[in-house]
Amino acid sequence: MLLCMKMAGSIISRMLDEMEGTSMNPHYYAVIMAGGGGTRLWPLSRQSRPKQLLPIIEQRSLFQMAVDRLDGLFTPDHVLVVTVQNQVKDLHEQCPFLPMENILIEPEPRGTASVVGLAAVALTKRDPEAIMAVLTSDHYIGNQEWFQKLLRVAAVVAEKNYLVTLGITPTYAATGYGYIQHGGVQGRYDGVDVYYVKRFKEKPDELQAQIMLATGDHTWNSGMFVWKAKKILEEIDHQMPALGNSLRKLATKWNTNQRQQVLEKEWLNLETQTIDYGVMEGARDVVVIPAGSLRWSDVGSWDSLFDVLPADANGNIIIGGKHFGLDTQRSLVYVNQEHRLIVTIGVRDLVVVDTGDVLLICRKDEAQKVRHVVNILKDKGDEHV
Amino acid sequence: MLLCMKMAGSIISRMLDEMEGTSMNPHYYAVIMAGGGGTRLWPLSRQSRPKQLLPIIEQRSLFQMAVDRLDGLFTPDHVLVVTVQNQVKDLHEQCPFLPMENILIEPEPRGTASVVGLAAVALTKRDPEAIMAVLTSDHYIGNQEWFQKLLRVAAVVAEKNYLVTLGITPTYAATGYGYIQHGGVQGRYDGVDVYYVKRFKEKPDELQAQIMLATGDHTWNSGMFVWKAKKILEEIDHQMPALGNSLRKLATKWNTNQRQQVLEKEWLNLETQTIDYGVMEGARDVVVIPAGSLRWSDVGSWDSLFDVLPADANGNIIIGGKHFGLDTQRSLVYVNQEHRLIVTIGVRDLVVVDTGDVLLICRKDEAQKVRHVVNILKDKGDEHV
Repeated sequence: MLLCMKMAGSIISRMLDEMEGTSMNPHYYAVIMAGGGGTRLWPLSRQSRPKQLLPIIEQRSLFQMAVDRLDGLFTPDHVLVVTVQNQVKDLHEQCPFLPMENILIEPEPRGTASVVGLAAVALTKRDPEAIMAVLTSDHYIGNQEWFQKLLRVAAVVAEKNYLVTLGITPTYAATGYGYIQHGGVQGRYDGVDVYYVKRFKEKPDELQAQIMLATGDHTWNSGMFVWKAKKILEEIDHQMPALGNSLRKLATKWNTNQRQQVLEKEWLNLETQTIDYGVMEGARDVVVIPAGSLRWSDVGSWDSLFDVLPADANGNIIIGGKHFGLDTQRSLVYVNQEHRLIVTIGVRDLVVVDTGDVLLICRKDEAQKVRHVVNILKDKGDEHV
Repeated sequence: MLLCMKMAGSIISRMLDEMEGTSMNPHYYAVIMAGGGGTRLWPLSRQSRPKQLLPIIEQRSLFQMAVDRLDGLFTPDHVLVVTVQNQVKDLHEQCPFLPMENILIEPEPRGTASVVGLAAVALTKRDPEAIMAVLTSDHYIGNQEWFQKLLRVAAVVAEKNYLVTLGITPTYAATGYGYIQHGGVQGRYDGVDVYYVKRFKEKPDELQAQIMLATGDHTWNSGMFVWKAKKILEEIDHQMPALGNSLRKLATKWNTNQRQQVLEKEWLNLETQTIDYGVMEGARDVVVIPAGSLRWSDVGSWDSLFDVLPADANGNIIIGGKHFGLDTQRSLVYVNQEHRLIVTIGVRDLVVVDTGDVLLICRKDEAQKVRHVVNILKDKGDEHV
């Protein structure tokens, strides 16, 4: 009788664990890609201080938030970060609880294909059965609970040897993202539908984007994937033999003192390529999970912060500095100069970013043009980029 | 024959002098009122650094320009400045060629009536026949040649014991200025018509301003006057007996060592009053010279600089700093931080003023509201006013 009750308790406990999703596959790892440069939030972000490192939201950086949102799903030793040398220090300072050996360093950035390959090699060496969730470090996700649920479902599907992509349910006819068209349902897991992928599509023009939005079978490519490390290495071997070759060389020397030497030598000759274009577009066994209400943003320009940060009653977002607004609406003021007084009068839909050495004033709906300006300044050799 | 030729030469020379206006009445003096405070060009102007002292146009201050434009008409010893103690140093540094004894200092600012009275006392003591041109220090005048011509004509009319006012020919239905309505022609001098004044009018409402603009017999009160010092002292005596009494006491002690003591004692009890309201509105023998194409501006708010400074091909006025504008039009950027890079994107009709400790961003057509903000900040005891 006692035994029966114990057994029943154990079964109920396991059932509850599975329902709550707290018992995670022990082979599941997160790989955060955090090596990107870029100046999309210029002048706050600079070549030397990329977006993921910036304390934009409640004094947390996007990288910190990317790590934070894994809490409860992955223990720190199951979180890997792939970056480049000049970001290691900042990343480690921002998340000192991550083991230093989990920070993988590319000798040179070579696009996301090599990032994924490097992490997959590291993981297979640690755990041949490793499943990896490839995650971004510079995006915003508002619904952490839902995100973790999707990652749990994705792991179950990846376990079946699928390449799982997370697709962002489109909210408008965006021309700035790649799209994923899905076909029929592969399965339904804990209430989440998973679809076979028909094809990947490059960034569309306005008309194509309108059509894709209307058909309802397209999602934005989020750049987040879940798969077995072994499986993606096989796909790389098929589709990117040069990279595959380099990765195999690296794998054989991984646990020797030649690892760094091989890494540097092989990376020198790699071509820069994304995992999407290099592998996913031609891969088999690809499925997509439309992410639904993830509250995702790529934080790709200043105006995107309006999707991410709470505005006041006038629709304004004021960060830092001391602001006095008269008749000011739907505007963003970001000032990292503590003692500066900012006064705005009669201002609408404006982005103001003051970093001390640079003052950017930009109409909100032209915030995408910041990139043009940065490129022009870069060409001029301007010191402020 | 030689004598005849000499006489003829002399007559012709005198005729030319009069035509050119180069032979000025030796009793003619300029009195520049430069004691005003105010923060109308805040945050550049502050309580401690009023508008007339600011190097706004080609690195010259409005005060310097007010002195510059007298060049050739008045010698420096005939230019007086009335100010308050805390501006003496700056004024003298900006125009060191003005004799120190020509800078008259009010113990307390008491409005333009006392300014005029003080200068009139000083001048009658120096030259009982003095004619004084009362001039502003913080306005812009684009047509110097015409300005000097009007001052020459005004001196001729003042010589006949008239109180001469310079009226600005209105260019729009302004509600921010007082108006002068004129009657018939008093005379025509060197092609300039001088009119009898019917009445002075306070700042009108919008409808009144429209009507006054339409009737064509109104000019804006510029606050610039020309008269005999003796004559204005008589008028003050009639209409402002308390001030008149103080001025008479001051006059008796002017050339004694008690001058300063009397000045301080009398000024303590003076009521603050403008010469317009205190004297001109009730005076007899008042005439007005409509100034025509003087290109005058009171530089009363940031948007007024568009009337004063040359704009570039996009209608922008950029002062100081390093500016990069993309799709930026009809905007003013004033930055006194040399090393700051200012980037504007998609900006129209905006005023941006960056003084380091304060950043003002204001829609051009709401530039008048800067004053409200300053008042609010003042009430809060804010350090930036």
